[in-house]
Amino acid sequence: MTRLFRGGQKQVALPPGTMEYMGEPKVERVRISIVQYDARGFQETEVSDIHEALSLLEKPGTTWINIDGLHETGILETIGERLGLHPLVLEDIVNIHQRPKQEDYQDYLYLVLKMLDYDPAKRHVTVEQISLVLGPNYVLSFQERVGDIFDPVRERIRQGKGRIRTAGPPYLAYALLDAVVDNYFVLLERIGDTIEDLEEDLVENPKPELMQHIHGLKREMIILRKAVWPTREVVSGLERADTPLLGREIAHFLRDVYDHTIQVVDAVESFRDVLSGYQDLYLSSLSNKMNEVMKVLTIAATIFVPLTFVAGVYGMNFEYMPELHWKWSYLVFWIVILILAGGMLRFFRRRDWL
Amino acid sequence: MTRLFRGGQKQVALPPGTMEYMGEPKVERVRISIVQYDARGFQETEVSDIHEALSLLEKPGTTWINIDGLHETGILETIGERLGLHPLVLEDIVNIHQRPKQEDYQDYLYLVLKMLDYDPAKRHVTVEQISLVLGPNYVLSFQERVGDIFDPVRERIRQGKGRIRTAGPPYLAYALLDAVVDNYFVLLERIGDTIEDLEEDLVENPKPELMQHIHGLKREMIILRKAVWPTREVVSGLERADTPLLGREIAHFLRDVYDHTIQVVDAVESFRDVLSGYQDLYLSSLSNKMNEVMKVLTIAATIFVPLTFVAGVYGMNFEYMPELHWKWSYLVFWIVILILAGGMLRFFRRRDWL
Amino acid sequence: MTRLFRGGQKQVALPPGTMEYMGEPKVERVRISIVQYDARGFQETEVSDIHEALSLLEKPGTTWINIDGLHETGILETIGERLGLHPLVLEDIVNIHQRPKQEDYQDYLYLVLKMLDYDPAKRHVTVEQISLVLGPNYVLSFQERVGDIFDPVRERIRQGKGRIRTAGPPYLAYALLDAVVDNYFVLLERIGDTIEDLEEDLVENPKPELMQHIHGLKREMIILRKAVWPTREVVSGLERADTPLLGREIAHFLRDVYDHTIQVVDAVESFRDVLSGYQDLYLSSLSNKMNEVMKVLTIAATIFVPLTFVAGVYGMNFEYMPELHWKWSYLVFWIVILILAGGMLRFFRRRDWL
Amino acid sequence: MTRLFRGGQKQVALPPGTMEYMGEPKVERVRISIVQYDARGFQETEVSDIHEALSLLEKPGTTWINIDGLHETGILETIGERLGLHPLVLEDIVNIHQRPKQEDYQDYLYLVLKMLDYDPAKRHVTVEQISLVLGPNYVLSFQERVGDIFDPVRERIRQGKGRIRTAGPPYLAYALLDAVVDNYFVLLERIGDTIEDLEEDLVENPKPELMQHIHGLKREMIILRKAVWPTREVVSGLERADTPLLGREIAHFLRDVYDHTIQVVDAVESFRDVLSGYQDLYLSSLSNKMNEVMKVLTIAATIFVPLTFVAGVYGMNFEYMPELHWKWSYLVFWIVILILAGGMLRFFRRRDWL
Amino acid sequence: MTRLFRGGQKQVALPPGTMEYMGEPKVERVRISIVQYDARGFQETEVSDIHEALSLLEKPGTTWINIDGLHETGILETIGERLGLHPLVLEDIVNIHQRPKQEDYQDYLYLVLKMLDYDPAKRHVTVEQISLVLGPNYVLSFQERVGDIFDPVRERIRQGKGRIRTAGPPYLAYALLDAVVDNYFVLLERIGDTIEDLEEDLVENPKPELMQHIHGLKREMIILRKAVWPTREVVSGLERADTPLLGREIAHFLRDVYDHTIQVVDAVESFRDVLSGYQDLYLSSLSNKMNEVMKVLTIAATIFVPLTFVAGVYGMNFEYMPELHWKWSYLVFWIVILILAGGMLRFFRRRDWL
Repeated sequence: MTRLFRGGQKQVALPPGTMEYMGEPKVERVRISIVQYDARGFQETEVSDIHEALSLLEKPGTTWINIDGLHETGILETIGERLGLHPLVLEDIVNIHQRPKQEDYQDYLYLVLKMLDYDPAKRHVTVEQISLVLGPNYVLSFQERVGDIFDPVRERIRQGKGRIRTAGPPYLAYALLDAVVDNYFVLLERIGDTIEDLEEDLVENPKPELMQHIHGLKREMIILRKAVWPTREVVSGLERADTPLLGREIAHFLRDVYDHTIQVVDAVESFRDVLSGYQDLYLSSLSNKMNEVMKVLTIAATIFVPLTFVAGVYGMNFEYMPELHWKWSYLVFWIVILILAGGMLRFFRRRDWL
Repeated sequence: MTRLFRGGQKQVALPPGTMEYMGEPKVERVRISIVQYDARGFQETEVSDIHEALSLLEKPGTTWINIDGLHETGILETIGERLGLHPLVLEDIVNIHQRPKQEDYQDYLYLVLKMLDYDPAKRHVTVEQISLVLGPNYVLSFQERVGDIFDPVRERIRQGKGRIRTAGPPYLAYALLDAVVDNYFVLLERIGDTIEDLEEDLVENPKPELMQHIHGLKREMIILRKAVWPTREVVSGLERADTPLLGREIAHFLRDVYDHTIQVVDAVESFRDVLSGYQDLYLSSLSNKMNEVMKVLTIAATIFVPLTFVAGVYGMNFEYMPELHWKWSYLVFWIVILILAGGMLRFFRRRDWL
Repeated sequence: MTRLFRGGQKQVALPPGTMEYMGEPKVERVRISIVQYDARGFQETEVSDIHEALSLLEKPGTTWINIDGLHETGILETIGERLGLHPLVLEDIVNIHQRPKQEDYQDYLYLVLKMLDYDPAKRHVTVEQISLVLGPNYVLSFQERVGDIFDPVRERIRQGKGRIRTAGPPYLAYALLDAVVDNYFVLLERIGDTIEDLEEDLVENPKPELMQHIHGLKREMIILRKAVWPTREVVSGLERADTPLLGREIAHFLRDVYDHTIQVVDAVESFRDVLSGYQDLYLSSLSNKMNEVMKVLTIAATIFVPLTFVAGVYGMNFEYMPELHWKWSYLVFWIVILILAGGMLRFFRRRDWL
Repeated sequence: MTRLFRGGQKQVALPPGTMEYMGEPKVERVRISIVQYDARGFQETEVSDIHEALSLLEKPGTTWINIDGLHETGILETIGERLGLHPLVLEDIVNIHQRPKQEDYQDYLYLVLKMLDYDPAKRHVTVEQISLVLGPNYVLSFQERVGDIFDPVRERIRQGKGRIRTAGPPYLAYALLDAVVDNYFVLLERIGDTIEDLEEDLVENPKPELMQHIHGLKREMIILRKAVWPTREVVSGLERADTPLLGREIAHFLRDVYDHTIQVVDAVESFRDVLSGYQDLYLSSLSNKMNEVMKVLTIAATIFVPLTFVAGVYGMNFEYMPELHWKWSYLVFWIVILILAGGMLRFFRRRDWL
Repeated sequence: MTRLFRGGQKQVALPPGTMEYMGEPKVERVRISIVQYDARGFQETEVSDIHEALSLLEKPGTTWINIDGLHETGILETIGERLGLHPLVLEDIVNIHQRPKQEDYQDYLYLVLKMLDYDPAKRHVTVEQISLVLGPNYVLSFQERVGDIFDPVRERIRQGKGRIRTAGPPYLAYALLDAVVDNYFVLLERIGDTIEDLEEDLVENPKPELMQHIHGLKREMIILRKAVWPTREVVSGLERADTPLLGREIAHFLRDVYDHTIQVVDAVESFRDVLSGYQDLYLSSLSNKMNEVMKVLTIAATIFVPLTFVAGVYGMNFEYMPELHWKWSYLVFWIVILILAGGMLRFFRRRDWL
């Protein structure tokens, strides 16, 4: 359940704007990597000192500073001072239990996003927070640990494919946002496969553990939805945002991302519906099996209990039981028994129990 | 489940605007057919070279270029360059997992629609993407494979019935949109018939497979809804769109299509409600059958188990059992047995079990 | 199911604006009846030729032309030409599977309404389409067949009661709309009575057919809702409509009709809730009955099975069974049996099973 | 069910604005009581002639005319003529099946409210209609029968407590509205107590009648909601109403009533949720009991049926059964029996059935 | 249930604006504590006389008066007179069954909030009302009893950390609001832990009490939601409020609180979903157990009932039963018995019942 809700409990006694990283440090050292580019060329650097990174901002072109690891708050403080970020922004970057959101601070835009991963073995969705800050000539991205989610964007800058090298920071921010949302598609296909496998199991071999599995997947859907729904609002907020930081030109691109988030939301809702359908299917197959069990019991008992009674009758020790002494009694007994049993079987067959 | 969600996974590592066809090539050769018409006449052509088709655009009148097959991206690139289409539009045309949408790119309108078909044998709804581009003097339509959905429109152009030959590209776009939506009606009636048959089965012969069938239909409804809901938004978006590409005159026609999409949405929701009702009906009939089984068992056991006990008593070998030696014991035994059994039967009849 | 969805399949291959009547001809001859009135007097006519009817429109006062029967499209075409009605309006009048709607065509208002009837024997709601066209000095009403729904309005015109003779076409249109909505009240009370009877049955005699009956009523509610919900929108659309065809004065009257439609919608929702409650009640009573059955079986089996075992023991033929030869064995046997049975009964009574 | 829906069936054939009282006359004589007051004093009168009451309106100060009993439509007609009330208002006052609503007729405001009462014996909510008309210097209130709901307001006028004597008709109308809404609180607490008792029963003694009781309460909630939801809209409509009849000063008071109606709506929804929870609880306790019954049966049968078989074996009359002649057979038999029974019991204990 | 709804019943007969404390006095003496501060310093006082407290308002700087205990209405009356608070505000402060709300009275803002606590032993959420009044140079806070919820704020004032000492009354009000909302996080984590424990129990040891426990938690969620939902509206209302009492600067801080309330609301909804999932899980595990029980019974009965019949046959006393006299009969009997039993067991194994 702690996976379902984990707010910033530590922060309770602290003033707003206090930075305290909530998670476990997921990288040993904070990694700071910088890509600086314009239409003519690009330059990739990895620095250990944040001051060095910030000094690069004076150069012309677009600067993308990516920071993997949030446990060294000193780095964030330096960035915050240098770029004039609001204390709440810094707090939200390290408080990894934020809801996805976008905030316009005039001089820069702040985005909180969630990166999702699905572990089919544990059947868990893992959630990591990604923060983006879009300034006039820079984009900052913050991740909890080193990941490969932004590699395609980096690759596109290197190759200069498409408009990425010429379109400045807003397009870069869009490209990063797009990378995050595209990642959801991978996740959804993986979950979709798990659900598909589940249906086959459900039809071929309905076991009690399946119900728990279905329930587990529904819970993951709740977690997923909490990350995905607000992302939709983030993108639609950006579309409507009336800020010079985002030029007119990327409206169509944001529209495209928005369409993708809607597809993601739709898929999550569909999965929920399908899983609920599985529950009904499972419960009805349970009832069916119970019915089968009952029928077997009923057929066995209903045939043999009366027969046993008849046998019991002629096992009685009354002195005066004329049938006992007739020669054909035993034969007649068997004939009667077979007729009784046959009648019963016909009765069950007529009721479609056999 | 892959039918429930299939996003553009390939595209993840590619820049936005990259064209890559997601489906299997559904036609061997891309078919390009052109209809050019105005109030005075019309001309139908089928060309193999897209440049040829595009050169026809210089002629006066309305030009409708229909392209069946999306796997040759070169054709799309040529069209895109010639007509100045946005790279995202080209990408969306081939990425057949788009949500229905309409986008206004000033110089042209872009529509994504879904063509639906229902295969009663497999009980599957199949979904194909149809893209429309409405320019000042042309309409482009893209289908995944050769289909007959636009044949009535083509026929109306040939015959010059109604206002189609005089009303220009917006009316043609409307006519194509209308053809797609009208097609949903055929689909819905076919599904409606399947559901109707289901109800008869449910009443006459409730078998476990029915539950799976109902569940399957509910899942198809989810797929249907994902195609149909956004279509409603597409049409209402067109109605509100403030673009010179659509004249004032077709507002009433769009209104009419909008009414149809609402009817379709209503029908899908009704089907879902009815199918949920079937589930309840099935489960309650299952409970009823279980009840019947239990009653039979209970009646049989409750009558014969006590009788067997009585018979067992007189099968005991105690030396001193006075009843054994009485002359009328056996007769009395049967009388007692019949009274007991009769009492039991009356008890069950009073409880309405018989 | 065809009752749940029936769109205009025929129309698929036809251009918009083509008139084709979808239903079976419900009257043999189309009946055209005209009422013409003003503050001073009124005149009722029945004509066989539509031209005759239309020529009456030149006279001063309000003219109400009521047409029962939609299968002669020639009549509609004549009206359409003469009054300049849009082809889509004519198409919608004969396509009786429209959703209730109101459309403002500047020169006239077009309303589609549904007349509902409930047949308690078949437990079916029947739906008929009623179209109204409100022009500057006339009102046209179209019904599928001769009905008595507008008789009260006709009667009020005859008697000159209220403001109907003085208030012109808008008030007449309102009166007809009001007559349709008032009719829903009759329908709802009839259905309400059916539901009330159902509850008594449910309590006194819960049979499997009841579940089917409840399900059937729920399905009728779906049909009802599809007719009634959009009617609400029609009336609220009229209220907001900014057209000179409707004067300011009837705003309060429309408000009143609107309140009625909301009452109808509320009632339909309440009926649905109540019917869902009945399902729960039925299922729980089913479980209760199963419980009862099980208890009877359990009591019978649990008492007599052990006793039968005891009797069986003393029916064994071992040579050395000391109890067999004791004089009081048989008596002791009965005492033990009675004690065992009594203990069992106390056990069941303590568990509240008896 | 007639309690769930009762529209104005009689009215169908009548023109709008026709007054016809729908209920049974709940008082024998219509009672007309008048309170007239201003800051300096007040005067209470009870008159038998409505003309007398209306003539008091010429005096300065605020006049409150309360009419208990709606079956004498002549009185209402007189009031209507004298004060210029719209015919629809008069119709709605006597048609006691209105939905709560507020209507602004420029010269006066018209409010329909519902007074609710809960009869714990019958477990029924009874609904009575209260109409208020707020004019420039008067307030009219109409009740179906003599009630004590407005007594606190009358008392406050007598005592001159608070601002009631100085704040004119709008404050009086607010005070009456407030009295009606406050009354819902009493009702809700009474129902809350009933529900609380129910939960105790559910835990201690779950009987089949409980399900019916829960269902009954849920149905009453539907009735309640139909009265309470629109009341919220009435109050919020008054808050937004831009009419000189309501001064600016009472905005905060209306806000207060609005908060109360929301609390009432919240409570009704909570009750519904809780009652649905009770149903689940009841059904699961039913399943639990069935499980218990089944376990008892299974334990009894599974232990004694095999033992009976063993006893049956040695009751056979084969000539050559060596065991029958061994001396210790009988002792061994009992030992085997006890071991078998003991093993069975351990099996059941391990499964937690005992 | 009284916990689910408790309105201000007492108030029914009283005029609006009458103060009467609804709860039990939760402190013996009302405690009045004052903190006065500005950028240069701060001063904490505890006074026994409210006049003394109010006289401090004349000093410059921000004054925060916190009052623990609401049962002495004289204190409130004094405050109301001195600061010109509306009678309804005073009434709402003591009527502790208010819904959270915010009201703008021009000269001051009035906020009602709820403090929530969860008692894991009783499994109850307790609700206390907190009122805040924000004036131009003061903040009043009212609590039902002495609590530690505002201690962190007090501590921050003492230490002068952050901007609290310089940012005036709006920031103080924000800080108090933030403290209340942060408190919800603690509560939610505690409830989340309870729910997590529940899931383990559900999997390992599903007992009937669990269902009651789940139901209890769902009911607490209803209570929680009633407190939390309106809090969201309160904060968003403050954000939109166009009042000089709140400066522009705290918009971002309010946005932050708003994000937190949404997280809280999300969590409550997730908990509800998860608890509903638990119910399904519990019911399906119940069905599974029933199935297990039935299988055991069926296996035992179906194997031994036919065998008992066979034994019964040879216990009959017919004179002419040839088998009785054959030498190998007894051996053959056992062989037949074992074959029968073995066949049965194979049958059950094939059906996966063993």
